[in-house]
Amino acid sequence: MVVERKMTKKFLEDAYAGESQAHMKYMIFAEVAEKEGFPNIAKLFRAIAFAELIHAKNHYRALGNVKDTPNNLQAAIDGETFEVEEMYSAYKAVAELQGEKEAIRSIHYALEAEKIHAELYKKAKELAEQKKDMEIKKVYICPVCGYTAVDEAPEKCPVCGVPREKFVVFE
Amino acid sequence: MVVERKMTKKFLEDAYAGESQAHMKYMIFAEVAEKEGFPNIAKLFRAIAFAELIHAKNHYRALGNVKDTPNNLQAAIDGETFEVEEMYSAYKAVAELQGEKEAIRSIHYALEAEKIHAELYKKAKELAEQKKDMEIKKVYICPVCGYTAVDEAPEKCPVCGVPREKFVVFE
Ligand SMILES: [Fe+2]
Ligand SMILES: [Fe+2]
Ligand SMILES: [Fe+2]
Ligand SMILES: [Fe+2]
Ligand SMILES: [Fe+2]
Ligand SMILES: [Fe+2]
Repeated sequence: MVVERKMTKKFLEDAYAGESQAHMKYMIFAEVAEKEGFPNIAKLFRAIAFAELIHAKNHYRALGNVKDTPNNLQAAIDGETFEVEEMYSAYKAVAELQGEKEAIRSIHYALEAEKIHAELYKKAKELAEQKKDMEIKKVYICPVCGYTAVDEAPEKCPVCGVPREKFVVFE
Repeated sequence: MVVERKMTKKFLEDAYAGESQAHMKYMIFAEVAEKEGFPNIAKLFRAIAFAELIHAKNHYRALGNVKDTPNNLQAAIDGETFEVEEMYSAYKAVAELQGEKEAIRSIHYALEAEKIHAELYKKAKELAEQKKDMEIKKVYICPVCGYTAVDEAPEKCPVCGVPREKFVVFE
């Protein structure tokens, strides 16, 4: 049963956005609490971040946005492509115009990673449509800029220069 | 160095919202891929979700929104209180007016959990201001509605009825 009336739909979309941002905020705050010597407050932040994930998932499902994997991959490709071709390109131009150095860096890091994400999701979609999984073993993520590499990581991050040993590995 | 110009600030806030929602979307899609028998595509979704977390964190820092734990807890309390007193109360009224059953449930689940979150964060803040950590061992989260309990979980979720054995434990 998917939501049909426009105002409820709009509000659920806003609620999905709000829950996603709350989840993210608590994940960030958990890291700070851990570093400042509050391991149990960090635990509380992480647990509540997970509760917000449940809320976001419930809203997203009620909106009818959770489909099968090929369609989910298409939604991912559309999002990444919009970010590369429109959103971050526009934001970068404005940050440069206004000389906002921190923003230029933060936007540049994201823009470079999104290009790779779009390509990886395209490969995944081709396979998923044939009911095949990807044949990948490890995904490496740069903890500073989000640079993404599959199976082999470069010695240094080509975007921000962080050494390979710092990369976070998903396997 | 925090961003100062208004347009760059606005765009970074939008980028934080976008990255948070992309992160969340990929976490949800990873679960679907796992269930549909695509473990490696699920891995790709999870890894890229982590890259989006890095992007969101970079934007959030550039905005100057990452502070010390007492201030982060205050930001958390403000968000939860807004959700309880304004946002979800308003959304619930509209979903009821429009008879949108799925939305009513999804909103009700969130609203009940946010009340508990606000109280827990208030306790945490009082302690953090005295440089003390919380004395908690386990946080239990209901995987269906996000209900949150500390140290002792009820036999059944008081909001949605799920049995305790299904709760996700943070310890
Ligand atoms: Fe929530
Ligand atoms: Fe991306
Ligand atoms: Fe990097
Ligand atoms: Fe991103
Ligand atoms: Fe909450
Ligand atoms: Fe529940």
